[in-house]
Amino acid sequence: MRHDNPKAVALRARLNVHQPALAMAAHNPLSAKLAAAAGFDAIWGSGFELSASYAVPDANILSMDTHLEMMRAIGEVQDAPVIADLDTGFGNAVNVSYIVPRYAAAGVAAVVMEDKTFPKDSSLRPGGRQELVPAGEFQGKIAAAKNASGNAIPGPLVVARTEALIAGLGEAEALRRGAAYVEAGADAVLIHSKQKTPDEILSFCRAWPGQAPLVLVPTSYPQLSFADVAALGKVGLIICGNHAIRAAAAAMQNVFRRIIAEGGIAGVEADIASVADVFALQGDDRMRALEKAYLR
Amino acid sequence: MRHDNPKAVALRARLNVHQPALAMAAHNPLSAKLAAAAGFDAIWGSGFELSASYAVPDANILSMDTHLEMMRAIGEVQDAPVIADLDTGFGNAVNVSYIVPRYAAAGVAAVVMEDKTFPKDSSLRPGGRQELVPAGEFQGKIAAAKNASGNAIPGPLVVARTEALIAGLGEAEALRRGAAYVEAGADAVLIHSKQKTPDEILSFCRAWPGQAPLVLVPTSYPQLSFADVAALGKVGLIICGNHAIRAAAAAMQNVFRRIIAEGGIAGVEADIASVADVFALQGDDRMRALEKAYLR
Amino acid sequence: MRHDNPKAVALRARLNVHQPALAMAAHNPLSAKLAAAAGFDAIWGSGFELSASYAVPDANILSMDTHLEMMRAIGEVQDAPVIADLDTGFGNAVNVSYIVPRYAAAGVAAVVMEDKTFPKDSSLRPGGRQELVPAGEFQGKIAAAKNASGNAIPGPLVVARTEALIAGLGEAEALRRGAAYVEAGADAVLIHSKQKTPDEILSFCRAWPGQAPLVLVPTSYPQLSFADVAALGKVGLIICGNHAIRAAAAAMQNVFRRIIAEGGIAGVEADIASVADVFALQGDDRMRALEKAYLR
Amino acid sequence: MRHDNPKAVALRARLNVHQPALAMAAHNPLSAKLAAAAGFDAIWGSGFELSASYAVPDANILSMDTHLEMMRAIGEVQDAPVIADLDTGFGNAVNVSYIVPRYAAAGVAAVVMEDKTFPKDSSLRPGGRQELVPAGEFQGKIAAAKNASGNAIPGPLVVARTEALIAGLGEAEALRRGAAYVEAGADAVLIHSKQKTPDEILSFCRAWPGQAPLVLVPTSYPQLSFADVAALGKVGLIICGNHAIRAAAAAMQNVFRRIIAEGGIAGVEADIASVADVFALQGDDRMRALEKAYLR
Repeated sequence: MRHDNPKAVALRARLNVHQPALAMAAHNPLSAKLAAAAGFDAIWGSGFELSASYAVPDANILSMDTHLEMMRAIGEVQDAPVIADLDTGFGNAVNVSYIVPRYAAAGVAAVVMEDKTFPKDSSLRPGGRQELVPAGEFQGKIAAAKNASGNAIPGPLVVARTEALIAGLGEAEALRRGAAYVEAGADAVLIHSKQKTPDEILSFCRAWPGQAPLVLVPTSYPQLSFADVAALGKVGLIICGNHAIRAAAAAMQNVFRRIIAEGGIAGVEADIASVADVFALQGDDRMRALEKAYLR
Repeated sequence: MRHDNPKAVALRARLNVHQPALAMAAHNPLSAKLAAAAGFDAIWGSGFELSASYAVPDANILSMDTHLEMMRAIGEVQDAPVIADLDTGFGNAVNVSYIVPRYAAAGVAAVVMEDKTFPKDSSLRPGGRQELVPAGEFQGKIAAAKNASGNAIPGPLVVARTEALIAGLGEAEALRRGAAYVEAGADAVLIHSKQKTPDEILSFCRAWPGQAPLVLVPTSYPQLSFADVAALGKVGLIICGNHAIRAAAAAMQNVFRRIIAEGGIAGVEADIASVADVFALQGDDRMRALEKAYLR
Repeated sequence: MRHDNPKAVALRARLNVHQPALAMAAHNPLSAKLAAAAGFDAIWGSGFELSASYAVPDANILSMDTHLEMMRAIGEVQDAPVIADLDTGFGNAVNVSYIVPRYAAAGVAAVVMEDKTFPKDSSLRPGGRQELVPAGEFQGKIAAAKNASGNAIPGPLVVARTEALIAGLGEAEALRRGAAYVEAGADAVLIHSKQKTPDEILSFCRAWPGQAPLVLVPTSYPQLSFADVAALGKVGLIICGNHAIRAAAAAMQNVFRRIIAEGGIAGVEADIASVADVFALQGDDRMRALEKAYLR
Repeated sequence: MRHDNPKAVALRARLNVHQPALAMAAHNPLSAKLAAAAGFDAIWGSGFELSASYAVPDANILSMDTHLEMMRAIGEVQDAPVIADLDTGFGNAVNVSYIVPRYAAAGVAAVVMEDKTFPKDSSLRPGGRQELVPAGEFQGKIAAAKNASGNAIPGPLVVARTEALIAGLGEAEALRRGAAYVEAGADAVLIHSKQKTPDEILSFCRAWPGQAPLVLVPTSYPQLSFADVAALGKVGLIICGNHAIRAAAAAMQNVFRRIIAEGGIAGVEADIASVADVFALQGDDRMRALEKAYLR
């Protein structure tokens, strides 16, 4: 079906290296809707968050279908562009060719693939396996993704994520890979670091020639402010990679413990969303309009 | 496959009207795991929470498969018995006969069905449609559920939920329906009220002859403490029906707004779960043991 | 996402009452691909075939998600427009409003809804329940479906299926309902009959004023040829409602019995598709092209 | 949930090397039900058949969830033990540890894993990629599968499939791998060959010491009769690997072409299953009994 994927177009226009777009991670449509309402420019369809919401490791334990369905559901209830985390692409370049059109049909604005081997391991996990595929092999996957959208013109943006710093291969290799991926068609390059300070990332950003906007996920170095990133003039998108599930987990743990300790639910009422708030988030207004229009 | 469904057996034993079991609602495996860890006796596989997590109304908008898969996923990562919210049973008694074995295979300890028409509307929604099916028709659905477990002996417990008070039909009708449902095989009766005070529920409980344990969902009347309920001597299970999603929604909204306002993620760090905490909740210990045992 | 749904446009153009389009039922992408290759103009995404392929009754035993996923998969591997069988619409007009956009996103060209109560029973089943909802209620569902496509302009065609003849309500009621449904926005009217001769259908067609093209499913009266139907000048689409699964079932049964009886697989080789044929149907050409382009 | 998996027990007992069990491939519950009715001892939950029914290559294009759901659906409608084709195990040994319990919960009697790299390529595809993982790595996956069933005692049987002959590594390597896999816990060894004559397989079988029963899939060498295989005294199971989809594909193609050519559906009636036959296969008897017992 020929269409113009306005969300991909809008997201590309928003990748302004002097005023980076902000994306918030989501693990379900509710978190996405809240993020969009809070002012985030995009939704990060995070494999880590989704895995955490299922209480399983972020190591390709969940099936691609679970992730794809979640992207679709997120796109159905809010309008911010969705950036889908495809991990390593669920196979080789052939698999990517089959998968990306399915994500495009699910309405995503961008897909992100990382240059690790399958099954992946979480980048921030202490002692995790962090093996990269050869850069040439990954170029094939990027090219496949770029061309896979078929009759959707243009398809989703393709963001190449290199784990060269995570894998300890150094800045030079990271730069080489970033350049190779842009050459293969990547619209942006996500550079990830697990250093506790932003030094490694700052050095990379300064050395990056700027062929394409960079993408940062500052989980490990939260002290780097959005303004600091904007000042670099290289980064088009900042992803808050896991703050939805971390906020939710802490709050649920606290409320659950309090209810047990207090012997009732009265005490927590003031600290949680009201039932009316939840109805509103469920789109009660829309449902009432539909009832009025079509039920008798 | 013949087995003894030890979770159903354990849940039944736990329905002590002098010390009611406590269930917490969950909308994903993470919330279930946190609830079990906090000390709840059971997990309420809530249709309302699941719908809210998808940001759609609790009105049979989500497909049964979405709910069934979530029950299965919840059962895979924690050990508390799961009580599945089947809404109205997704059809008539024939549908129930096909559906309950699928929930049994997903490992649930109990199923709850309510005596409303399909598609349901949320019980607490102001002005919602609250139409009941004839009691005889609902008895057929209960009997179908009781007998549906087939070669699983015994199958999940069957909890009959009457919406007679919600529908404004009065205590006498609620009592009649509760009795009829126990007669048809229900293991417990969930009596729901949307009154802002516990008076209606207290009156019902006192009038209930006690053929089977009652189940309460005190969302509307939070002032009723668990000890108050225990003192009634009629209630075997108290369900905290929506506190996971309400806790999560409020926390995410707050954290999202702060990140935008603060221009960075450093400020919220202290108020959300750490990445290490999330790894632990994902079962990192288990994964490390598996890696050690089987990789290489 | 704004687009022009070229498949809906093409299907509408093809509903020529002087040369009706032909649709073949499919229960999986393979049957759809074979039907398109054989020359059928459209694919009937049949609930009956899908239920039969799962060996369960066509009575809303399968979940909507199973059907929706199959429509999506069928659309991914062949180009003929897909006409999705929505049974009774999986709920009321509100549910329809949520469901139709999901089918539109799955790429279907048309949706068909029937005016029976939920859960449905198979129209041709001897002694089945055949209760209709009031015509006004069904008009609300049609209007909801027509308006549900949202920003897809135009959305899928909406075909109203009346079971008035199946339910024994007579031609006058069938005509009244057909007219009411066109008034509510239906693009075509499917009129179903289980008579063993075409007399009932022929009478209806002759009496139909022609506000919209009719759709026939001649399962019960196979003697009516496509040319006979074309000569009526009223019917835009003929659906072969179940011939894929009936062909497959008979062939599998025969081959299975022969293998057992012959004590080996050599005997059936000549009567089944070759492995090379199956590779070709799986799109081996495309996969080879992808391998050549992107691997290495 | 502790149970005794009677289907795994029964299947193990049936792996008689002097009278091998016969399994037929199935791509949906209907084909499985027909196979069981025809007298096959087990159902082969074939990835090749499932992929073919979706008209996509057998190269991990379909997600694991699609296969898992199909195994579950097959188990719900017929009683023959289901042997699930797990391809390469959908990842490494850690993934296997998470996946096998899900298949066990879906009721399968056995799982089969092959020693190729992910993503797999179809074994019989001319020119396909056929790379094996090191034998030690695959032993880890077998051990993981054996121990993964957790509290289900015993879990599904684990069949190790070696593609050493397919990959052209020779009989000695195939024997070495077979022995290593049995050592790691495999209950049986599937030895695959794509030679057009049975010579390669016969030689392997004669050389196999017999530590565990072998499994054959004689697609490429159909001239080998079941009696010939039994006479070897080494093979416990013969899998007819793709005859359901091949029978169905040929029959559908033929019927579709005839309907187009004949201009109507009357001509094919005698050569396809009747609608009444399909109702029976859908379990109409069961549905009638349920209606009688529970409706009203």
